[in-house]
Amino acid sequence: MALRTLTAKSAAALDAELMSTGAFSLDQLMELAGLSVAQCLHTLSPPAKTPRVLVACGPGNNGGDGLVAARHLCHFGYRPSVYFPKQTKHELYARLRTQLEQLKVPFVTDFTAAAKEADYILDAIFGFSFSGEVREPFPSVIATLASTKVPVLAVDAPSSWNIESGPPGDGPGKGYMPTALVSLTAPKPLVKWFRGRHFVGGRFVGREVAEKYGFDVPAYKGGEQVVEVPLDDVKL
Amino acid sequence: MALRTLTAKSAAALDAELMSTGAFSLDQLMELAGLSVAQCLHTLSPPAKTPRVLVACGPGNNGGDGLVAARHLCHFGYRPSVYFPKQTKHELYARLRTQLEQLKVPFVTDFTAAAKEADYILDAIFGFSFSGEVREPFPSVIATLASTKVPVLAVDAPSSWNIESGPPGDGPGKGYMPTALVSLTAPKPLVKWFRGRHFVGGRFVGREVAEKYGFDVPAYKGGEQVVEVPLDDVKL
Repeated sequence: MALRTLTAKSAAALDAELMSTGAFSLDQLMELAGLSVAQCLHTLSPPAKTPRVLVACGPGNNGGDGLVAARHLCHFGYRPSVYFPKQTKHELYARLRTQLEQLKVPFVTDFTAAAKEADYILDAIFGFSFSGEVREPFPSVIATLASTKVPVLAVDAPSSWNIESGPPGDGPGKGYMPTALVSLTAPKPLVKWFRGRHFVGGRFVGREVAEKYGFDVPAYKGGEQVVEVPLDDVKL
Repeated sequence: MALRTLTAKSAAALDAELMSTGAFSLDQLMELAGLSVAQCLHTLSPPAKTPRVLVACGPGNNGGDGLVAARHLCHFGYRPSVYFPKQTKHELYARLRTQLEQLKVPFVTDFTAAAKEADYILDAIFGFSFSGEVREPFPSVIATLASTKVPVLAVDAPSSWNIESGPPGDGPGKGYMPTALVSLTAPKPLVKWFRGRHFVGGRFVGREVAEKYGFDVPAYKGGEQVVEVPLDDVKL
Protein backbone atom coordinates (compact mmCIF):
# COMPACT_ATOMS: atom_id res chain seq x y z
CA MET A 1 0.00 0.00 0.00
CA ALA A 2 1.35 3.43 -0.96
CA LEU A 3 1.26 5.96 1.89
CA ARG A 4 -0.67 9.14 1.29
CA THR A 5 0.97 12.46 2.18
CA LEU A 6 -0.23 15.10 4.62
CA THR A 7 -0.42 18.75 3.54
CA ALA A 8 0.88 21.58 5.73
CA LYS A 9 -2.70 22.65 6.44
CA SER A 10 -3.80 19.15 7.46
CA ALA A 11 -0.67 18.68 9.59
CA ALA A 12 -1.48 21.90 11.47
CA ALA A 13 -5.11 20.81 11.94
CA LEU A 14 -4.01 17.37 13.18
CA ASP A 15 -1.57 18.95 15.65
CA ALA A 16 -4.34 21.18 16.97
CA GLU A 17 -6.71 18.21 17.31
CA LEU A 18 -4.12 16.07 19.11
CA MET A 19 -3.62 18.82 21.68
CA SER A 20 -7.33 19.61 22.14
CA THR A 21 -9.67 16.63 21.62
CA GLY A 22 -6.70 14.24 21.78
CA ALA A 23 -5.65 15.62 25.18
CA PHE A 24 -1.94 15.33 24.41
CA SER A 25 0.51 17.80 25.89
CA LEU A 26 3.23 19.26 23.71
CA ASP A 27 5.69 17.60 26.12
CA GLN A 28 4.37 14.17 25.22
CA LEU A 29 4.25 14.66 21.46
CA MET A 30 7.66 16.31 21.30
CA GLU A 31 9.20 13.57 23.43
CA LEU A 32 7.94 10.85 21.11
CA ALA A 33 8.82 12.81 17.96
CA GLY A 34 12.33 13.67 19.16
CA LEU A 35 12.97 10.11 20.31
CA SER A 36 12.00 8.79 16.88
CA VAL A 37 14.37 11.30 15.23
CA ALA A 38 17.26 10.16 17.43
CA GLN A 39 16.46 6.51 16.70
CA CYS A 40 16.35 7.33 12.99
CA LEU A 41 19.86 8.76 13.17
CA HIS A 42 21.00 5.66 15.03
CA THR A 43 19.63 3.51 12.20
CA LEU A 44 21.44 5.68 9.64
CA SER A 45 24.75 5.86 11.44
CA PRO A 46 25.61 4.54 14.92
CA PRO A 47 27.70 6.58 17.37
CA ALA A 48 30.83 4.49 16.79
CA LYS A 49 30.81 5.71 13.18
CA THR A 50 29.61 9.32 13.58
CA PRO A 51 30.01 10.36 17.22
CA ARG A 52 29.81 14.13 16.76
CA VAL A 53 26.28 15.21 15.83
CA LEU A 54 25.49 18.89 15.37
CA VAL A 55 21.81 19.60 15.99
CA ALA A 56 20.50 22.80 14.37
CA CYS A 57 17.32 23.94 16.12
CA GLY A 58 14.89 26.51 14.81
CA PRO A 59 12.62 28.69 16.96
CA GLY A 60 9.48 26.52 16.75
CA ASN A 61 8.34 22.94 17.35
CA ASN A 62 10.78 21.52 14.81
CA GLY A 63 13.58 22.99 16.93
CA GLY A 64 11.98 21.47 20.05
CA ASP A 65 12.03 18.04 18.39
CA GLY A 66 15.73 18.66 17.75
CA LEU A 67 16.38 19.48 21.43
CA VAL A 68 14.67 16.26 22.51
CA ALA A 69 16.57 14.28 19.87
CA ALA A 70 19.89 15.74 21.08
CA ARG A 71 19.18 14.49 24.60
CA HIS A 72 18.38 10.97 23.43
CA LEU A 73 21.46 10.97 21.16
CA CYS A 74 23.53 11.70 24.24
CA HIS A 75 22.03 8.67 26.01
CA PHE A 76 22.71 6.57 22.88
CA GLY A 77 26.44 7.34 23.11
CA TYR A 78 26.81 10.21 20.63
CA ARG A 79 28.50 13.50 21.54
CA PRO A 80 25.88 15.96 20.33
CA SER A 81 26.25 19.73 20.24
CA VAL A 82 23.35 22.11 19.73
CA TYR A 83 22.93 25.30 17.71
CA PHE A 84 19.82 27.07 19.02
CA PRO A 85 20.13 30.78 18.19
CA LYS A 86 16.49 31.93 18.53
CA GLN A 87 15.39 30.77 21.94
CA THR A 88 11.75 31.30 22.73
CA LYS A 89 10.50 32.04 26.24
CA HIS A 90 8.11 29.04 26.15
CA GLU A 91 8.77 27.19 29.39
CA LEU A 92 9.04 23.80 27.65
CA TYR A 93 11.97 25.01 25.55
CA ALA A 94 13.72 26.38 28.62
CA ARG A 95 13.30 22.99 30.29
CA LEU A 96 14.53 21.07 27.23
CA ARG A 97 17.60 23.30 27.29
CA THR A 98 18.19 22.65 30.99
CA GLN A 99 17.87 18.90 30.40
CA LEU A 100 20.69 19.15 27.86
CA GLU A 101 22.83 21.32 30.13
CA GLN A 102 22.49 18.68 32.85
CA LEU A 103 24.02 16.20 30.41
CA LYS A 104 26.78 18.74 29.60
CA VAL A 105 25.72 18.95 25.95
CA PRO A 106 27.45 22.07 24.56
CA PHE A 107 25.52 24.88 22.88
CA VAL A 108 27.43 26.45 20.00
CA THR A 109 27.00 29.89 18.44
CA ASP A 110 28.96 29.60 15.19
CA PHE A 111 27.10 27.06 13.07
CA THR A 112 29.44 27.07 10.09
CA ALA A 113 32.52 26.50 12.28
CA ALA A 114 30.72 23.76 14.23
CA ALA A 115 29.60 22.04 11.01
CA LYS A 116 33.26 21.53 10.03
CA GLU A 117 33.79 19.47 13.20
CA ALA A 118 30.62 17.41 12.86
CA ASP A 119 30.20 13.83 11.61
CA TYR A 120 26.46 14.25 11.07
CA ILE A 121 24.11 17.22 11.13
CA LEU A 122 20.48 17.19 12.23
CA ASP A 123 18.40 19.86 10.48
CA ALA A 124 15.62 20.73 12.95
CA ILE A 125 15.25 24.34 11.83
CA PHE A 126 11.89 24.54 10.06
CA GLY A 127 9.06 22.02 9.90
CA PHE A 128 5.60 21.85 8.38
CA SER A 129 4.65 25.34 9.57
CA PHE A 130 7.46 27.03 7.59
CA SER A 131 6.08 30.25 6.14
CA GLY A 132 8.39 30.61 3.16
CA GLU A 133 10.66 33.27 4.58
CA VAL A 134 14.10 32.37 5.94
CA ARG A 135 14.80 34.97 8.62
CA GLU A 136 18.14 35.82 10.24
CA PRO A 137 20.29 34.13 11.40
CA PHE A 138 19.17 31.13 9.34
CA PRO A 139 20.09 32.11 5.72
CA SER A 140 23.79 31.38 6.29
CA VAL A 141 22.95 28.23 8.27
CA ILE A 142 20.87 26.90 5.40
CA ALA A 143 23.52 27.87 2.88
CA THR A 144 25.95 25.78 4.94
CA LEU A 145 23.51 22.85 4.91
CA ALA A 146 23.28 23.19 1.13
CA SER A 147 27.04 23.18 0.62
CA THR A 148 28.44 20.93 3.38
CA LYS A 149 29.91 17.50 2.66
CA VAL A 150 28.78 16.32 6.12
CA PRO A 151 25.68 14.07 5.91
CA VAL A 152 22.44 15.73 7.02
CA LEU A 153 19.25 14.23 8.43
CA ALA A 154 16.33 16.63 8.00
CA VAL A 155 13.45 16.56 10.48
CA ASP A 156 10.02 16.62 8.77
CA ALA A 157 11.23 18.92 5.96
CA PRO A 158 14.54 20.06 4.49
CA SER A 159 14.62 23.59 5.96
CA SER A 160 13.69 26.29 3.41
CA TRP A 161 11.75 23.83 1.24
CA ASN A 162 8.09 24.63 0.69
CA ILE A 163 5.96 21.91 2.28
CA GLU A 164 3.87 21.48 -0.87
CA SER A 165 6.05 22.67 -3.73
CA GLY A 166 9.45 21.48 -2.54
CA PRO A 167 12.88 23.03 -3.12
CA PRO A 168 13.12 26.82 -3.31
CA GLY A 169 14.02 28.05 -6.80
CA ASP A 170 16.44 30.53 -5.31
CA GLY A 171 17.80 31.77 -1.98
CA PRO A 172 20.05 30.15 0.65
CA GLY A 173 18.38 26.73 0.27
CA LYS A 174 19.02 26.49 -3.46
CA GLY A 175 20.46 23.06 -4.19
CA TYR A 176 19.95 21.82 -0.61
CA MET A 177 19.34 18.07 -0.63
CA PRO A 178 19.78 16.36 2.76
CA THR A 179 21.13 12.81 2.92
CA ALA A 180 18.05 11.56 4.72
CA LEU A 181 14.64 12.78 5.80
CA VAL A 182 12.47 11.66 8.70
CA SER A 183 8.85 12.67 8.19
CA LEU A 184 6.90 13.09 11.41
CA THR A 185 3.53 11.28 11.51
CA ALA A 186 3.29 11.20 7.68
CA PRO A 187 5.30 12.33 4.64
CA LYS A 188 4.53 15.82 3.36
CA PRO A 189 4.02 16.56 -0.37
CA LEU A 190 7.63 17.85 -0.63
CA VAL A 191 8.92 14.27 -0.58
CA LYS A 192 8.16 14.24 -4.32
CA TRP A 193 11.39 16.23 -4.84
CA PHE A 194 13.46 14.43 -2.21
CA ARG A 195 16.19 11.98 -3.21
CA GLY A 196 17.66 10.04 -0.31
CA ARG A 197 16.71 7.65 2.49
CA HIS A 198 13.28 8.38 3.87
CA PHE A 199 11.79 7.42 7.24
CA VAL A 200 8.58 8.06 9.14
CA GLY A 201 8.58 8.60 12.93
CA GLY A 202 6.29 10.06 15.58
CA ARG A 203 4.08 7.05 16.25
CA PHE A 204 1.17 8.57 18.12
CA VAL A 205 -1.80 8.54 15.77
CA GLY A 206 -4.29 5.71 15.37
CA ARG A 207 -5.80 4.56 12.09
CA GLU A 208 -9.08 6.32 12.73
CA VAL A 209 -7.52 9.77 13.13
CA ALA A 210 -5.19 9.10 10.16
CA GLU A 211 -8.20 8.30 8.01
CA LYS A 212 -9.94 11.49 9.10
CA TYR A 213 -6.94 13.52 7.91
CA GLY A 214 -6.45 11.48 4.76
CA PHE A 215 -3.08 9.87 5.46
CA ASP A 216 -1.84 6.40 6.40
CA VAL A 217 -0.07 4.98 9.44
CA PRO A 218 3.08 3.29 8.08
CA ALA A 219 3.89 -0.34 8.82
CA TYR A 220 6.04 0.13 11.93
CA LYS A 221 7.84 -3.02 13.05
CA GLY A 222 7.01 -4.34 16.50
CA GLY A 223 7.33 -1.63 19.12
CA GLU A 224 9.67 0.54 17.05
CA GLN A 225 9.05 4.28 16.82
CA VAL A 226 10.54 4.89 13.36
CA VAL A 227 10.40 2.99 10.08
CA GLU A 228 12.15 3.34 6.74
CA VAL A 229 9.61 4.09 4.00
CA PRO A 230 11.20 4.10 0.53
CA LEU A 231 9.75 6.87 -1.62
CA ASP A 232 8.42 4.27 -4.05
CA ASP A 233 6.00 3.44 -1.25
CA VAL A 234 4.64 6.99 -1.04
CA LYS A 235 1.73 8.11 -3.19
CA LEU A 236 3.02 11.26 -4.91
CA MET B 1 29.62 -5.26 35.51
CA ALA B 2 26.86 -6.06 38.00
CA LEU B 3 24.20 -3.35 38.26
CA ARG B 4 23.63 -1.78 41.64
CA THR B 5 20.06 -1.44 42.92
CA LEU B 6 18.19 1.72 43.88
CA THR B 7 16.37 1.89 47.23
CA ALA B 8 12.85 3.29 47.52
CA LYS B 9 14.23 6.37 49.26
CA SER B 10 16.82 7.01 46.56
CA ALA B 11 14.26 6.42 43.80
CA ALA B 12 11.99 9.05 45.36
CA ALA B 13 14.89 11.50 45.69
CA LEU B 14 15.93 10.88 42.08
CA ASP B 15 12.36 11.45 40.88
CA ALA B 16 12.23 14.73 42.78
CA GLU B 17 15.58 15.83 41.35
CA LEU B 18 14.57 14.96 37.77
CA MET B 19 11.48 17.12 38.10
CA SER B 20 13.23 20.05 39.83
CA THR B 21 16.90 20.49 38.88
CA GLY B 22 16.44 18.14 35.90
CA ALA B 23 13.56 20.23 34.55
CA PHE B 24 11.60 17.19 33.38
CA SER B 25 7.81 17.23 33.38
CA LEU B 26 5.91 14.24 34.66
CA ASP B 27 4.46 14.01 31.12
CA GLN B 28 7.90 13.41 29.66
CA LEU B 29 9.10 10.88 32.23
CA MET B 30 5.84 8.94 32.21
CA GLU B 31 5.78 8.84 28.41
CA LEU B 32 9.27 7.34 28.25
CA ALA B 33 8.63 4.95 31.13
CA GLY B 34 5.31 3.76 29.72
CA LEU B 35 6.75 3.34 26.24
CA SER B 36 9.55 1.18 27.62
CA VAL B 37 7.01 -0.97 29.49
CA ALA B 38 5.01 -1.52 26.28
CA GLN B 39 8.18 -2.37 24.37
CA CYS B 40 9.14 -4.80 27.13
CA LEU B 41 5.84 -6.62 26.73
CA HIS B 42 6.39 -6.73 22.97
CA THR B 43 9.77 -8.38 23.57
CA LEU B 44 8.15 -10.90 25.91
CA SER B 45 5.17 -11.72 23.74
CA PRO B 46 4.13 -10.05 20.46
CA PRO B 47 0.49 -9.16 19.74
CA ALA B 48 0.02 -12.10 17.35
CA LYS B 49 0.63 -14.41 20.32
CA THR B 50 -1.08 -12.51 23.16
CA PRO B 51 -3.42 -9.89 21.68
CA ARG B 52 -5.56 -9.23 24.76
CA VAL B 53 -3.59 -7.37 27.43
CA LEU B 54 -5.28 -6.34 30.65
CA VAL B 55 -3.56 -3.34 32.22
CA ALA B 56 -4.16 -2.91 35.97
CA CYS B 57 -3.48 0.66 37.01
CA GLY B 58 -3.05 1.91 40.54
CA PRO B 59 -3.81 5.42 41.76
CA GLY B 60 -0.24 6.82 41.50
CA ASN B 61 2.59 7.17 39.02
CA ASN B 62 2.89 3.42 38.50
CA GLY B 63 -0.71 3.48 37.26
CA GLY B 64 0.14 6.41 35.00
CA ASP B 65 2.96 4.39 33.46
CA GLY B 66 0.37 1.67 32.85
CA LEU B 67 -2.00 4.10 31.10
CA VAL B 68 0.80 5.26 28.80
CA ALA B 69 1.85 1.64 28.14
CA ALA B 70 -1.74 0.71 27.24
CA ARG B 71 -1.81 3.44 24.57
CA HIS B 72 1.45 2.28 23.00
CA LEU B 73 0.30 -1.35 23.14
CA CYS B 74 -2.72 -0.30 21.11
CA HIS B 75 -0.44 1.26 18.46
CA PHE B 76 1.67 -1.93 18.49
CA GLY B 77 -1.37 -4.00 17.49
CA TYR B 78 -2.53 -5.37 20.84
CA ARG B 79 -6.11 -5.07 22.05
CA PRO B 80 -5.54 -3.67 25.55
CA SER B 81 -8.17 -3.10 28.17
CA VAL B 82 -7.63 -1.04 31.30
CA TYR B 83 -8.65 -1.51 34.93
CA PHE B 84 -8.25 1.87 36.66
CA PRO B 85 -10.55 1.92 39.69
CA LYS B 86 -9.05 4.79 41.72
CA GLN B 87 -8.87 7.71 39.34
CA THR B 88 -7.14 10.79 40.66
CA LYS B 89 -8.13 14.29 39.66
CA HIS B 90 -4.59 15.10 38.46
CA GLU B 91 -5.05 16.58 35.00
CA LEU B 92 -2.37 14.36 33.44
CA TYR B 93 -4.27 11.22 34.43
CA ALA B 94 -7.48 12.63 32.98
CA ARG B 95 -5.63 13.32 29.72
CA LEU B 96 -4.05 9.87 29.63
CA ARG B 97 -7.50 8.42 30.04
CA THR B 98 -8.90 10.58 27.21
CA GLN B 99 -6.04 9.50 24.95
CA LEU B 100 -7.08 5.88 25.51
CA GLU B 101 -10.76 6.63 24.97
CA GLN B 102 -9.87 8.23 21.61
CA LEU B 103 -8.33 4.88 20.63
CA LYS B 104 -11.47 3.10 21.89
CA VAL B 105 -9.52 1.20 24.54
CA PRO B 106 -12.15 -0.22 26.92
CA PHE B 107 -12.06 0.46 30.68
CA VAL B 108 -13.22 -2.51 32.73
CA THR B 109 -14.58 -2.56 36.26
CA ASP B 110 -14.44 -6.27 37.18
CA PHE B 111 -10.75 -7.18 37.26
CA THR B 112 -11.17 -10.85 38.09
CA ALA B 113 -13.64 -11.39 35.25
CA ALA B 114 -11.43 -9.44 32.81
CA ALA B 115 -8.35 -11.44 33.86
CA LYS B 116 -10.05 -14.64 32.66
CA GLU B 117 -10.28 -13.17 29.14
CA ALA B 118 -6.72 -11.83 29.04
CA ASP B 119 -3.65 -13.28 27.32
CA TYR B 120 -1.25 -11.14 29.37
CA ILE B 121 -1.66 -8.89 32.40
CA LEU B 122 0.33 -5.75 33.14
CA ASP B 123 0.62 -5.05 36.87
CA ALA B 124 0.93 -1.27 37.15
CA ILE B 125 -0.74 -1.00 40.54
CA PHE B 126 2.02 -0.05 42.98
CA GLY B 127 5.57 1.11 42.33
CA PHE B 128 8.55 2.20 44.39
CA SER B 129 6.45 4.48 46.63
CA PHE B 130 4.24 1.62 47.90
CA SER B 131 3.64 2.19 51.59
CA GLY B 132 3.03 -1.38 52.66
CA GLU B 133 -0.73 -1.20 52.92
CA VAL B 134 -2.96 -2.67 50.18
CA ARG B 135 -6.13 -0.61 50.26
CA GLU B 136 -9.50 -1.39 48.65
CA PRO B 137 -10.24 -2.33 45.94
CA PHE B 138 -6.77 -3.79 45.39
CA PRO B 139 -6.64 -6.79 47.83
CA SER B 140 -8.79 -8.94 45.55
CA VAL B 141 -6.95 -7.70 42.45
CA ILE B 142 -3.63 -8.72 43.93
CA ALA B 143 -5.06 -12.04 45.07
CA THR B 144 -6.06 -12.62 41.44
CA LEU B 145 -2.54 -11.71 40.27
CA ALA B 146 -1.17 -14.23 42.77
CA SER B 147 -3.43 -17.05 41.60
CA THR B 148 -3.94 -16.49 37.86
CA LYS B 149 -2.41 -18.74 35.22
CA VAL B 150 -2.23 -15.77 32.84
CA PRO B 151 1.34 -14.43 32.51
CA VAL B 152 1.97 -11.14 34.31
CA LEU B 153 4.51 -8.40 33.64
CA ALA B 154 5.02 -6.24 36.74
CA VAL B 155 6.02 -2.59 36.37
CA ASP B 156 8.89 -1.60 38.70
CA ALA B 157 7.68 -3.88 41.52
CA PRO B 158 5.33 -6.84 41.92
CA SER B 159 2.43 -5.02 43.60
CA SER B 160 2.24 -5.63 47.38
CA TRP B 161 5.96 -6.51 47.57
CA ASN B 162 8.03 -4.35 49.87
CA ILE B 163 10.61 -2.43 47.80
CA GLU B 164 13.46 -3.46 50.10
CA SER B 165 12.34 -6.68 51.77
CA GLY B 166 10.43 -8.28 48.92
CA PRO B 167 7.40 -10.59 49.05
CA PRO B 168 4.86 -10.04 51.83
CA GLY B 169 4.80 -12.87 54.37
CA ASP B 170 1.03 -12.77 54.40
CA GLY B 171 -1.94 -10.97 52.86
CA PRO B 172 -3.36 -10.87 49.33
CA GLY B 173 0.09 -10.85 47.68
CA LYS B 174 1.24 -14.04 49.41
CA GLY B 175 2.81 -16.28 46.79
CA TYR B 176 2.57 -13.65 44.04
CA MET B 177 5.42 -14.13 41.57
CA PRO B 178 4.95 -12.34 38.22
CA THR B 179 6.29 -13.93 35.05
CA ALA B 180 8.44 -10.91 34.27
CA LEU B 181 9.48 -7.63 35.85
CA VAL B 182 10.53 -4.39 34.21
CA SER B 183 12.45 -2.17 36.62
CA LEU B 184 12.22 1.53 35.83
CA THR B 185 15.57 3.36 35.75
CA ALA B 186 17.23 0.74 37.97
CA PRO B 187 16.36 -2.51 39.75
CA LYS B 188 15.09 -2.14 43.31
CA PRO B 189 16.37 -4.33 46.19
CA LEU B 190 13.25 -6.57 45.89
CA VAL B 191 14.72 -8.20 42.77
CA LYS B 192 16.67 -10.41 45.18
CA TRP B 193 13.45 -12.42 45.68
CA PHE B 194 12.25 -12.29 42.10
CA ARG B 195 12.43 -15.35 39.84
CA GLY B 196 11.62 -14.66 36.20
CA ARG B 197 12.72 -12.57 33.25
CA HIS B 198 13.97 -9.16 34.29
CA PHE B 199 14.27 -5.97 32.23
CA VAL B 200 15.24 -2.36 32.83
CA GLY B 201 13.46 0.51 31.05
CA GLY B 202 12.99 4.25 31.45
CA ARG B 203 16.14 5.47 29.74
CA PHE B 204 16.35 9.06 30.88
CA VAL B 205 19.22 9.28 33.34
CA GLY B 206 22.83 9.96 32.46
CA ARG B 207 25.82 8.30 34.09
CA GLU B 208 26.60 11.30 36.26
CA VAL B 209 23.18 11.38 37.92
CA ALA B 210 23.22 7.56 38.24
CA GLU B 211 26.55 7.77 40.05
CA LYS B 212 25.20 10.44 42.41
CA TYR B 213 22.36 8.10 43.41
CA GLY B 214 24.58 5.04 43.53
CA PHE B 215 23.14 2.96 40.70
CA ASP B 216 24.23 2.04 37.16
CA VAL B 217 22.81 2.76 33.72
CA PRO B 218 22.36 -0.67 32.08
CA ALA B 219 23.90 -1.50 28.70
CA TYR B 220 20.98 -0.53 26.45
CA LYS B 221 21.43 -1.61 22.83
CA GLY B 222 21.52 1.14 20.22
CA GLY B 223 18.53 3.43 20.54
CA GLU B 224 16.39 0.91 22.43
CA GLN B 225 14.45 2.01 25.51
CA VAL B 226 14.39 -1.31 27.36
CA VAL B 227 16.98 -4.03 27.92
CA GLU B 228 16.88 -7.49 29.43
CA VAL B 229 19.11 -7.67 32.51
CA PRO B 230 19.39 -11.21 33.90
CA LEU B 231 19.37 -11.19 37.68
CA ASP B 232 22.87 -12.70 37.69
CA ASP B 233 23.92 -9.27 36.41
CA VAL B 234 22.41 -7.43 39.39
CA LYS B 235 24.43 -6.84 42.55
CA LEU B 236 22.20 -8.20 45.31
